[in-house]
Amino acid sequence: MEQRFPKGNKPRIIIVGGGFGGIELAKKLRNQDVEVIMLDKHNYHTFQPLLYQVATGGLEADSIAFPLRRIFKGQKNLTFRVTEVKKVLPLENVVETTIGTFEYDHLVISTGSTSNFFGQTEIEKNAMPMKSIPEALNLRSLILQNLELAQITTDELAEAELLNFVVVGGGPTGVETSGAIAELKKHVLKNDYPELDLSKVNIYLIEGSPELLGAMSVQAQQKSEAFLKELGVTVMTNARVQSYNGRQLTLVDGRIIPSSTVIWSAGVKGVVIEGLNPQSVVRGNRVKVNEINRIDGHENIYAIGDVAAMITEELPNGHPGVAPAAIQQGKQLAENLINIINNKPTEPFKYFDKGAMATVGRNRAVVDIHKVRFQGVFAWFTWMFVHLMTLVGFRNKLVVFVNWVWSYFSYDRGTRLIIRPFLRGNPELLLETTKLANDETTKLVKDEPKVN
Amino acid sequence: MEQRFPKGNKPRIIIVGGGFGGIELAKKLRNQDVEVIMLDKHNYHTFQPLLYQVATGGLEADSIAFPLRRIFKGQKNLTFRVTEVKKVLPLENVVETTIGTFEYDHLVISTGSTSNFFGQTEIEKNAMPMKSIPEALNLRSLILQNLELAQITTDELAEAELLNFVVVGGGPTGVETSGAIAELKKHVLKNDYPELDLSKVNIYLIEGSPELLGAMSVQAQQKSEAFLKELGVTVMTNARVQSYNGRQLTLVDGRIIPSSTVIWSAGVKGVVIEGLNPQSVVRGNRVKVNEINRIDGHENIYAIGDVAAMITEELPNGHPGVAPAAIQQGKQLAENLINIINNKPTEPFKYFDKGAMATVGRNRAVVDIHKVRFQGVFAWFTWMFVHLMTLVGFRNKLVVFVNWVWSYFSYDRGTRLIIRPFLRGNPELLLETTKLANDETTKLVKDEPKVN
Repeated sequence: MEQRFPKGNKPRIIIVGGGFGGIELAKKLRNQDVEVIMLDKHNYHTFQPLLYQVATGGLEADSIAFPLRRIFKGQKNLTFRVTEVKKVLPLENVVETTIGTFEYDHLVISTGSTSNFFGQTEIEKNAMPMKSIPEALNLRSLILQNLELAQITTDELAEAELLNFVVVGGGPTGVETSGAIAELKKHVLKNDYPELDLSKVNIYLIEGSPELLGAMSVQAQQKSEAFLKELGVTVMTNARVQSYNGRQLTLVDGRIIPSSTVIWSAGVKGVVIEGLNPQSVVRGNRVKVNEINRIDGHENIYAIGDVAAMITEELPNGHPGVAPAAIQQGKQLAENLINIINNKPTEPFKYFDKGAMATVGRNRAVVDIHKVRFQGVFAWFTWMFVHLMTLVGFRNKLVVFVNWVWSYFSYDRGTRLIIRPFLRGNPELLLETTKLANDETTKLVKDEPKVN
Repeated sequence: MEQRFPKGNKPRIIIVGGGFGGIELAKKLRNQDVEVIMLDKHNYHTFQPLLYQVATGGLEADSIAFPLRRIFKGQKNLTFRVTEVKKVLPLENVVETTIGTFEYDHLVISTGSTSNFFGQTEIEKNAMPMKSIPEALNLRSLILQNLELAQITTDELAEAELLNFVVVGGGPTGVETSGAIAELKKHVLKNDYPELDLSKVNIYLIEGSPELLGAMSVQAQQKSEAFLKELGVTVMTNARVQSYNGRQLTLVDGRIIPSSTVIWSAGVKGVVIEGLNPQSVVRGNRVKVNEINRIDGHENIYAIGDVAAMITEELPNGHPGVAPAAIQQGKQLAENLINIINNKPTEPFKYFDKGAMATVGRNRAVVDIHKVRFQGVFAWFTWMFVHLMTLVGFRNKLVVFVNWVWSYFSYDRGTRLIIRPFLRGNPELLLETTKLANDETTKLVKDEPKVN
């Protein structure tokens, strides 16, 4: 029996996805005479820029997540439902979900992006993505489990596999993750694992192009690479991954790195819902939208944020997949939807580029604000300030701040719980069991709702 | 192939379990000329008294857990291993674990306790235990999932099952848990679920004996019951559970409560390792120990904390299963082990009873310190102070303190992430899927290491 959620008298706007764009849009519709329905497969908003700190033991998962119901507290025209959207039926103006069918007048796709393995299924099966809270927690457990296993391994190759950490992709996430693992080695491992020969712990950052942080200035690129090298990260540019079987990573040029921890941050793709105009899907699995974020070939379906490609002459690939672009699109679309409902002219979206930044480690970050570029301690404090201010919720700001201050003075990381099942075998089988654990819990922890 | 961990020249003391007793013992052996090995199936110490706050969204899991390796930072005579002990072979002086076989001179069992379902397998299968971090996180997800499911249910019985929360067992854990759920209802649900008819949300506390908090004073018993009733908890004393099938709880007197959330805090049992003298196992699955915590029938095997029953005329069931008893036994045993190694006389253990306390909710707690008994606001602040001071680690103290202050002023709970898989069906099947989710993830989240 299918439950139906028919419309009332007011225009109904359905927003799929409670990321930066979705929540901005929903909040801007607060005092409007419309019915807003927000659908998300999680009951919380994820602050993705800090996922890497969850994965490396710096922050609690709860402090970078915020309950979506709490964000919309007191917003009387909004209904929130935890569900997964299965399909859009544009001709009938309905979306099919795991809990039933919803009618809409206007539909907004703000589903964001997911890891892009570019069709390499073996890599997808064995490498660790880091785009959601469960994935970040899973990665944290894997890193810590591998360190524990390395303590009892007698086999040298197995030890190398357990102690080599490889990050693929030299964008901000890759730079920040490899830097955070290097600091974990430097400040935490030497205390926590006194028996461990730290010289055997290696961190690799692999990037296909000639430089890191491709979207940033040359100063930022060079300085971030220098920072990473200071921290002991082996930076390999012009290096492309050929394959990864869970125990060894092979580069296109034939080099092999034994590793049971390969973190994939080499690309993202949009999360497109079935039923949308297939011709609208462009590079990176994004949907092509016009200047008011309306999807090509649809009358009343829009896309904002990472999943949307607003292609112009200056931006042949659309806007960057960053929070400010999603927030600005959400805000503009809220105004335009009200204009459309009131038969008023719409305003084309204008992107205000706030610049870019990335942190490598303690006192080491790079910031580009248009022509203003700086690196080092001040950049690091700027990075922390901007991220704290962008975090949703006062409690989260407070808890993250407390953690950062505490870490700054103690040189420690607070959260090192292994919370996924820990499979163990005899040392010969160590790696087998590691990967088993990995597969099993990824499947589980991925948190995909199952459809009956 | 079995790995072996043979002894060196120094006397080797193996401690199984990093709870309150185990870590106190290990720390007291810090400057002694012995080899200490601590084995635990987790890489962290759990502060069990606050698990109920994790389960009800008040605290992050990470803030009541502490990495065991960090506790023993710099303790050169200690080696820590994450593993599960499978068996003791007393005649050979070895323990068999999932990572190999360890020789010992002295073995200390500080494995603590687990939920006791008194052999009722149907209840064990369907009710939620709350003795570990994964169990508390699982319970938090279940409570929140049931609230989400209640939003889309059209069936009245299904709605009742989703919105009735039953806590079985009126000890401190049961009182604290039912109080915390009542406050969740009062302060959080009315904001988070504006469509929900709060009068349909019911919290039951079921206790077999005539009063709550059986081990405390009459004042504490009466006041805690009054506090719970003020918060809207239906307290049922003299009520015993007959059965629970996952959808309805049946009492011995025939009363039935429809509920898909039954939290089991009706009893604990010791976690006894295979291979110990079976005659030593007494009531509550504890092992009988003498006045220096040596297990009956063994020369060099000891037990401390929840798993140990030091039976005397005044204490026919041994000491209460509380942190101070475990800590004091750990401390005394450290001294006695050194005495034994040096052929000096041992000192019998003397328990210093620090009193008992339980919190019901904001400004509502009960404290018994021998003849000094008080209830209400001051008791509540006392309870918070004592728990903050007992928490391991400065960061944890700080984060818990920040959370409590923030909650006090905001009337909110910070952590409401659903992190286990969310199975959904059509409304007819809601309950089926709820239990399915429950079974599946309990299996998973229980975090039991598998043995190859």
